[in-house]
Amino acid sequence: MTEQVTTATDVNRMRELNALSIVRVLRGNPPSTVTELAARTGLSRPGTDVIVQGLVADGWLTVVEPDGSSIVGRPARRYRFNAGTGHVVGVDVGAHKVLAMLSDLDGTVAATSRLPVDPGAGPAERLAVADAAVDECLAAAGLRPDEIWAITVGVTGPVDAGGRTALFTPLPGWESVSPAEHLATRFSCPVQVENDCKLAALAERWQGAARDADDIVYLLAGMRTGAGLIIDGTLRRGYGGAAGEIGALRAVRWLTAPSHLESCPSLPAGIGTDDAAAWVFNAARSGDKAAKTAVRRYTRDLAVGTAALVLTLDPQLVVLGGGFSRSADLILDQLARELGRTCLRVPEIRASTLGAESVALGALRLALDEVDARLFEAGLPAPAAPRA
Amino acid sequence: MTEQVTTATDVNRMRELNALSIVRVLRGNPPSTVTELAARTGLSRPGTDVIVQGLVADGWLTVVEPDGSSIVGRPARRYRFNAGTGHVVGVDVGAHKVLAMLSDLDGTVAATSRLPVDPGAGPAERLAVADAAVDECLAAAGLRPDEIWAITVGVTGPVDAGGRTALFTPLPGWESVSPAEHLATRFSCPVQVENDCKLAALAERWQGAARDADDIVYLLAGMRTGAGLIIDGTLRRGYGGAAGEIGALRAVRWLTAPSHLESCPSLPAGIGTDDAAAWVFNAARSGDKAAKTAVRRYTRDLAVGTAALVLTLDPQLVVLGGGFSRSADLILDQLARELGRTCLRVPEIRASTLGAESVALGALRLALDEVDARLFEAGLPAPAAPRA
Repeated sequence: MTEQVTTATDVNRMRELNALSIVRVLRGNPPSTVTELAARTGLSRPGTDVIVQGLVADGWLTVVEPDGSSIVGRPARRYRFNAGTGHVVGVDVGAHKVLAMLSDLDGTVAATSRLPVDPGAGPAERLAVADAAVDECLAAAGLRPDEIWAITVGVTGPVDAGGRTALFTPLPGWESVSPAEHLATRFSCPVQVENDCKLAALAERWQGAARDADDIVYLLAGMRTGAGLIIDGTLRRGYGGAAGEIGALRAVRWLTAPSHLESCPSLPAGIGTDDAAAWVFNAARSGDKAAKTAVRRYTRDLAVGTAALVLTLDPQLVVLGGGFSRSADLILDQLARELGRTCLRVPEIRASTLGAESVALGALRLALDEVDARLFEAGLPAPAAPRA
Repeated sequence: MTEQVTTATDVNRMRELNALSIVRVLRGNPPSTVTELAARTGLSRPGTDVIVQGLVADGWLTVVEPDGSSIVGRPARRYRFNAGTGHVVGVDVGAHKVLAMLSDLDGTVAATSRLPVDPGAGPAERLAVADAAVDECLAAAGLRPDEIWAITVGVTGPVDAGGRTALFTPLPGWESVSPAEHLATRFSCPVQVENDCKLAALAERWQGAARDADDIVYLLAGMRTGAGLIIDGTLRRGYGGAAGEIGALRAVRWLTAPSHLESCPSLPAGIGTDDAAAWVFNAARSGDKAAKTAVRRYTRDLAVGTAALVLTLDPQLVVLGGGFSRSADLILDQLARELGRTCLRVPEIRASTLGAESVALGALRLALDEVDARLFEAGLPAPAAPRA
């Protein structure tokens, strides 16, 4: 090819793509010199320098001056992604609590708020608690609503493409609510609503037990049992948002699995439903025979639905999350044995490392993904909440 | 950006990417003019012309001269992808037959060979039949083995990353066989081995009942029941190649489903296993009560495993394929009703339109995908079987 057929349009398009390559290399990585950036992007050094200076002028990158500790030659300037140029919010709206988190564009959490909510609370009350939790985060971080670039809200039950939980939700009155529409009255940024199991799966891959895997079945094991699926590194929602809802199939026994714990004969009178499972796991750990039987039956039923997921997807890894993951020591070995009996290939099984924060963290991750998608589509304007 | 920072490397890289864009636009599409190609790729017209002439010189494109029927002005030359520059082979190695197909790079079938094989035949005999079927195709197309760019072999049972069926195979002695190694003694091109259900799923999306869908559960319904999964437009193999093997879970009843047909009380004596199902479906169509009950029980059990797949993946579409899809008229309505009882969202259900050719066609598609991956990675050398 000769110079005269390289049009101005071609060159501009290439420059934009190259700027994206440089930002991608710096997102979440240590500061780098122009020489390092040129090597990692495959671009020429002079071309890289021009683009980097433009990104600094626009506010996307900041200069890290050399600290002068080098004794050989003049140390080179480094550049880092300016993660503080924007922020996102993740909210976990659960049955008993709302957990909100606010982070910069690198996902570094700047504020957290956890507020209790009555399990029987209606949608208006629950949304008011969510608002309060988000407000606490904004106040702690010193930010206005219009400085938030994306919000994700995690809820129980499958969520359709419109952010509604119309198919099924265990939260009272929630099927008629749109948290996205509610938040849109105060926030101009995009608001996504997503199923809690799916968000927890994202979180485990981002910062938890599944950082090294691309094919993951995440189990939310608690008084409800759910699943989130990551296939080839991507969260799978399904055509209507209902992927992972294997628990609805009676044959796989997830609907009744926790009842083995609630109906444990050695359970003392006066222990409420919310605390029964914890008591049974502790008693099993102390050698209580009836409790050990209850845990064994629970795990056997948990394994049937898990086997259905594993046989369908053949994942690399199963992550046991949710409230019962605190008792993974009592569950994992038997779960592996049961899968060994039914599955052609038994994946590795690990316990969640994120615990109760996994849904809110996954909501942050999805909000960051949303920002990235808009940024890389819009071609990197100067920092401002990118338009939806 | 100024001209002096556009290095020769940057320009060469851009030219290569632009050539790939043009080939992509022409693959499987009608011939186009330079002006049309420029519009569709977003490249400048002079730049497009330079690249097109290079691709013609290399043999990737051929010129379609104007037919002179235009009466207004001079008609423009068109260019088409030269699909005949390379060929691929797809082979379906089944229990009762081997079906081989040979196509050009557009997937247009140039030769087909179908040879019977004894269900009890050992691996050496079965591979010899496969060789013979491939040889018939080569002879019919007038091609040498070194003119084949890729081969895919479809087999029953899950296939691991090494192309082996070590986990489980219903073909006698087949667990110790590597069809890829066998074919490598005669063919220098890449040889892939893949599970038959997965290939049939690919074929239905390529040319069959699922052309408009990206999230597909394909059911192979016959004396064996299997599944192939396409998610977000991509065939999913699973971490160890065992995705879709839900039938191994006893709770979903696929292992025993066909026995309802084989044990139908109205089945006359003397009808062999291979013909029993066809007899029962026909009898049910004619109103035989026992046959209708057998079909209903079969479908009910088929639905349990299907529900597990649907609840796990929430697909857009379920395709009923395999030998029993010829009796889809007796199965589809009930299958939809059963799914309606258990699934949160019932996908559309359609019968396969490709019948007995689906596995071999899917093998062609996978071979073509393999060629494309190598071409677009290697950056379009002049036509020749691209190196693996």
